[in-house]
Amino acid sequence: MSTAVMNYAMIGGGKDSFIGGVHRKAAALDGRTRLVAGAFSSTPERSLESARAIGVPEDRAYGSWREMLSAEADREKHGRVDFVSIVTPNHMHFAPAKAALEAGFHVVCDKPFTLTPGEAEELIALADARNLVCAVTYNYTGFPMIRHAAELCRTGQLGTIRKVFVEYHQGWLATALESTGMKQAAWRTDPAKAGLGGSLGDIGTHAENLISFVTGLEIESLCADLTSFVHGRELDDDAAVLIRFADSIAKGVLTCSQVCVGEGNALSLRVYGDAGGLTWRLGSPDNLVVAPLEGDPITLTRGGDQLCDRAKLATRLPPGHPEGFIEAFANIYLGVVEAIEAKRSGCEPTGLGAEIPTATDGLRGVRFVETCVESAREGNRWVEFS
Amino acid sequence: MSTAVMNYAMIGGGKDSFIGGVHRKAAALDGRTRLVAGAFSSTPERSLESARAIGVPEDRAYGSWREMLSAEADREKHGRVDFVSIVTPNHMHFAPAKAALEAGFHVVCDKPFTLTPGEAEELIALADARNLVCAVTYNYTGFPMIRHAAELCRTGQLGTIRKVFVEYHQGWLATALESTGMKQAAWRTDPAKAGLGGSLGDIGTHAENLISFVTGLEIESLCADLTSFVHGRELDDDAAVLIRFADSIAKGVLTCSQVCVGEGNALSLRVYGDAGGLTWRLGSPDNLVVAPLEGDPITLTRGGDQLCDRAKLATRLPPGHPEGFIEAFANIYLGVVEAIEAKRSGCEPTGLGAEIPTATDGLRGVRFVETCVESAREGNRWVEFS
Amino acid sequence: MSTAVMNYAMIGGGKDSFIGGVHRKAAALDGRTRLVAGAFSSTPERSLESARAIGVPEDRAYGSWREMLSAEADREKHGRVDFVSIVTPNHMHFAPAKAALEAGFHVVCDKPFTLTPGEAEELIALADARNLVCAVTYNYTGFPMIRHAAELCRTGQLGTIRKVFVEYHQGWLATALESTGMKQAAWRTDPAKAGLGGSLGDIGTHAENLISFVTGLEIESLCADLTSFVHGRELDDDAAVLIRFADSIAKGVLTCSQVCVGEGNALSLRVYGDAGGLTWRLGSPDNLVVAPLEGDPITLTRGGDQLCDRAKLATRLPPGHPEGFIEAFANIYLGVVEAIEAKRSGCEPTGLGAEIPTATDGLRGVRFVETCVESAREGNRWVEFS
Amino acid sequence: MSTAVMNYAMIGGGKDSFIGGVHRKAAALDGRTRLVAGAFSSTPERSLESARAIGVPEDRAYGSWREMLSAEADREKHGRVDFVSIVTPNHMHFAPAKAALEAGFHVVCDKPFTLTPGEAEELIALADARNLVCAVTYNYTGFPMIRHAAELCRTGQLGTIRKVFVEYHQGWLATALESTGMKQAAWRTDPAKAGLGGSLGDIGTHAENLISFVTGLEIESLCADLTSFVHGRELDDDAAVLIRFADSIAKGVLTCSQVCVGEGNALSLRVYGDAGGLTWRLGSPDNLVVAPLEGDPITLTRGGDQLCDRAKLATRLPPGHPEGFIEAFANIYLGVVEAIEAKRSGCEPTGLGAEIPTATDGLRGVRFVETCVESAREGNRWVEFS
Repeated sequence: MSTAVMNYAMIGGGKDSFIGGVHRKAAALDGRTRLVAGAFSSTPERSLESARAIGVPEDRAYGSWREMLSAEADREKHGRVDFVSIVTPNHMHFAPAKAALEAGFHVVCDKPFTLTPGEAEELIALADARNLVCAVTYNYTGFPMIRHAAELCRTGQLGTIRKVFVEYHQGWLATALESTGMKQAAWRTDPAKAGLGGSLGDIGTHAENLISFVTGLEIESLCADLTSFVHGRELDDDAAVLIRFADSIAKGVLTCSQVCVGEGNALSLRVYGDAGGLTWRLGSPDNLVVAPLEGDPITLTRGGDQLCDRAKLATRLPPGHPEGFIEAFANIYLGVVEAIEAKRSGCEPTGLGAEIPTATDGLRGVRFVETCVESAREGNRWVEFS
Repeated sequence: MSTAVMNYAMIGGGKDSFIGGVHRKAAALDGRTRLVAGAFSSTPERSLESARAIGVPEDRAYGSWREMLSAEADREKHGRVDFVSIVTPNHMHFAPAKAALEAGFHVVCDKPFTLTPGEAEELIALADARNLVCAVTYNYTGFPMIRHAAELCRTGQLGTIRKVFVEYHQGWLATALESTGMKQAAWRTDPAKAGLGGSLGDIGTHAENLISFVTGLEIESLCADLTSFVHGRELDDDAAVLIRFADSIAKGVLTCSQVCVGEGNALSLRVYGDAGGLTWRLGSPDNLVVAPLEGDPITLTRGGDQLCDRAKLATRLPPGHPEGFIEAFANIYLGVVEAIEAKRSGCEPTGLGAEIPTATDGLRGVRFVETCVESAREGNRWVEFS
Repeated sequence: MSTAVMNYAMIGGGKDSFIGGVHRKAAALDGRTRLVAGAFSSTPERSLESARAIGVPEDRAYGSWREMLSAEADREKHGRVDFVSIVTPNHMHFAPAKAALEAGFHVVCDKPFTLTPGEAEELIALADARNLVCAVTYNYTGFPMIRHAAELCRTGQLGTIRKVFVEYHQGWLATALESTGMKQAAWRTDPAKAGLGGSLGDIGTHAENLISFVTGLEIESLCADLTSFVHGRELDDDAAVLIRFADSIAKGVLTCSQVCVGEGNALSLRVYGDAGGLTWRLGSPDNLVVAPLEGDPITLTRGGDQLCDRAKLATRLPPGHPEGFIEAFANIYLGVVEAIEAKRSGCEPTGLGAEIPTATDGLRGVRFVETCVESAREGNRWVEFS
Repeated sequence: MSTAVMNYAMIGGGKDSFIGGVHRKAAALDGRTRLVAGAFSSTPERSLESARAIGVPEDRAYGSWREMLSAEADREKHGRVDFVSIVTPNHMHFAPAKAALEAGFHVVCDKPFTLTPGEAEELIALADARNLVCAVTYNYTGFPMIRHAAELCRTGQLGTIRKVFVEYHQGWLATALESTGMKQAAWRTDPAKAGLGGSLGDIGTHAENLISFVTGLEIESLCADLTSFVHGRELDDDAAVLIRFADSIAKGVLTCSQVCVGEGNALSLRVYGDAGGLTWRLGSPDNLVVAPLEGDPITLTRGGDQLCDRAKLATRLPPGHPEGFIEAFANIYLGVVEAIEAKRSGCEPTGLGAEIPTATDGLRGVRFVETCVESAREGNRWVEFS
């Protein structure tokens, strides 16, 4: 394994941010990245304060991402930023991502990727033109057992897929938390910042991405029932989506909700084919229950010898030593590092580098939100997914 | 507690029948019933053979239910049948139920109640006119923790209900079992015997009934996506139904399937209100997880001192001694015995007798199947539930 | 399957008794027994009251077991009692069991069998001499998955057994419940009624019996640490026992406790051999997790096609329909009925009849308690198990 | 929070080492340490190769720890190593730890701390004399829910503690893996390298430490039954230990085993007091089930508002986002960084710095192994724990 350590800069993710900390820990875990610069907040003072807390050199703490991209682009080769991580609220993904790509930096962007499909398409084109990595942090695909699930589905071990259930249920927005000054809640429920989707964008896109990653099925049409249960909330805090897939008999049921009192982060995936079924739950992420058509269910465990190479590559610890959210997230960052290396070597990425969620995944997620909203607006009827 | 032991006769449920055996064990468990007669099969010989195996006197084994009802109606008071249990395939519920009620017998009928709403309405009217009990064995309502769940919902302890998820997933019909000569599969997949619904009628109606029993919500409209995944199967073997409720902000998601490879009988219910949530799973039927809006989830256990009287009345064993399917089913039979006693005393039933699923529940289930099929036929659009 | 229905009488087990009700329901479940007589309580009045509540004819409700055995022994063949169930506190097992056997009745006796090994030996000799069934209700051996576990161990599918862990933890005696007038607690903590063991006799003997039933290993020596945690309690309410087995490298760890706050009835068994391991928990009694030396653990489910015949014979419902405590207990009663039939036919019992816990099992349990107490009294040192 | 980043060197833990990688990831996670030097292997070439793979500057890759300590001690302040992590097999802990402390470096040492109590005492004295941190990586104490468990026990919320069960069961040494050339197995089963204990040293000491950390109880005496199940293995691969505690009515049962086929890393802790009980399992490390004397068990979840500050300080993610082994381990490293800062500021450590397992914990672990071996050698009798 190569030992190149890549430098990166962060946009957003000040010291008290939840997701900024997650990205930093995930990037740090394997010692393959170094956070060297940041535009962590919207004012120079707070950005500097965050830089100090985080351990970034003060001279590379910037008051705006524009300033940062400009200054860093001018740096000489050594110590130069290799990629930029964008962890701002949704409405501030597009502009810095575009500018970063234009400046020649690879990009890691949080999800949902952009506010509109058009923006996503523009970024895809730009990254392609510049031969840059542009990853979207659908981090749940980083779990080794999800990768094994994908391997099982993609290699036909469940037979022809018939049914996919994916749930992503949380309870933290069961009350009007946004009106208490809680930042995380405030921007996620604000159409100007979150975009068209509330729970759909925040967690529904993860669910949609899991279906895609694991099964390879492409959504053909869907029927969505969106709700804003909390009084005064403009965006959905709950959604149920019936799905049909192109060139497939399979059907899907996707539910996401942020008003399920008592649920922390209950993500699960179940896939049933005509030759087997599988169940994965985030609450027990190191396990994958696989049921053959005949015989009893087997509980596969991360770290086991029987797992496919894709799962093994994403694994750090032996069975029974729990891995979690950050480890899965770190597999995305490791993949980005490897994908950048591959770009530079002019090769196709392999291993973890071939698994990263791309801007194309990001675009599909944006379309998914848009299509669900369209279905809901038109009376919760079936609409085509383009 | 009174010690009256009631005599009953069975229609269908020959010695090798699955559901006949379940009814008999459930009825026997508490020593409050005695099976004294039966038209167990469609020929006198096989009915007699079953009677011998089951321990029913040979002179009360009949070759047809018509013959049985006629002969038993003529019996004198002592030893006379108090009620009749109908455990035939769906298409043979209505005629014997009607005849039994007309002959003055109380009736216990398996679900789905009838093939059409009209038949169900006729039976309701008949039972009312004769002041007879007519119960439909939605047996999952017999679980003590389901009764406690109902109490929590009905007394507002979850606040205003927002979301209901009910799942009933099996895998046993993932292949064309009906073409192997397996009787259970054959009639359940035959429209002439099962009625309009396949999985919908067989298990979806249980799911619908659980929503009703626990939450008290009434379905206003629904959108159903039905599938027959197995080649050549005429009826649905999978359904996903989005539900809206009358006079309520609540929404429901009901899924039932018989092609979920690896699932035995995976029934679960989750209800979320603005003040709390609850989760019950058939795989762990003695537990009910209740989550308050603030604080951590509590695992309530059957037999616990804290449970409501409705749950306690339905409980036989202390906590930690598992109760199961038959015990829950037995609570329906105990309820029927108590309800008959109440009828005879001219009182309203109380306790278990007040909890039995009635012909009205049965009618609603039949309408549910019909409405889902209507939705599916009309392009899976939303349709009103009358 | 034969349809003989056997008549039985009960000694103890008045209408409010926990264990009496369990025995009655277990015996009734399959319609193979009829409770026709009883000496339910220590006074004629209360016995009669129980008979009425239970549905036993008043003329066969007796004020003492002596009176009952005498009267019933005089009855003619038809309607005569076939066997007697003894469900009194421990100190009242021996005398009625002896008298019942002497009167020619088969016997079902609750555990622990007797207060002393000598008594148990006397009953064994008596039953042998009269060719009568004398079963002891170690009911946990009635669980189908325990029978499958036994089959796996006995047929070498785990290889040479190395380690056995059995736990039986309850919390209900964490306070001095016996001083509140609670009968169940009072006699179980009273040496005059319970015998030498507290938790050891009440639940530890079940644990010991599970080891024996499943593994076939025979205890060679043990080292016991007994405690009476609750102030003023004379008998142990907690025990930890290290075990060595004859002609085996295997070692065992048995713990039982009635002061484990929060535990209802937490019984579990784990067996590890050099070729595999298995885990069973009462909280999920329909499952057995089996781990091969190579590969991932498989979750076997009651009702599955793959299970051995011993498990299938003990099964009533398909997979996913939970069976529980009473069903397992009923397998003991079914076995007793079959064993009596075999005795009468002069054959060896087969099927369920061959699985019943015998007086010899009962004797071993009494010796187990005695040996643990001996070890504890001698400074918790290792003592031989004879 | 301060942002000081500390430099450290590693002894052992070459690129293919399991535990070396774990330490590095744990240390890296929060961005508070920088690995700047290492004597990773026993030859200069392999140490250099590891340094390259790990990303340590080549000029600070050393062929021996003696060379490294000498060279690093001579370095100027800036960039100088703050602490040394020792992750070699057990027999190579003492000498480098002693030398590192003598050279003025703080020390993090893997467990079991040393081969003999005398060595441990010498290191304690040395660290005290030099005012240096000397931590032993009992990493399971880093789990937030273990810290909450400790808080509950230490503040009397379970009442007087009566019973402690701790289990640590693995299956990976169920065969003679050491004879296959597998390094991890080879040194752990070699008395010259592992010391007196096999499973006892490797995992039993973790179990012992958890009891101490959570309950604060001190072992007074114990009775140990040690086994080497695998033919030809010199050290124990299985142990059962009965424990009594000083100044307490509490008793403990500790079992550890490496021959439990099918178990990955099954560590669990259960504590029962006269006012409540708790259960924690490594397989579900984010949960702690707490049972009050009255009422139903509550499932506490890491990240919850209700948790104590000790748990919150050790937490990175909101509830439902699984944290695992590395995160817990990282809490030890964060604690070491904070403890070193406190030392330098002349204060007592607080927060995470006050929670680190110390050399005194290490000494107790060594004594535990020694005492168990003594008990076993003397016929598995009770021996005092000094």
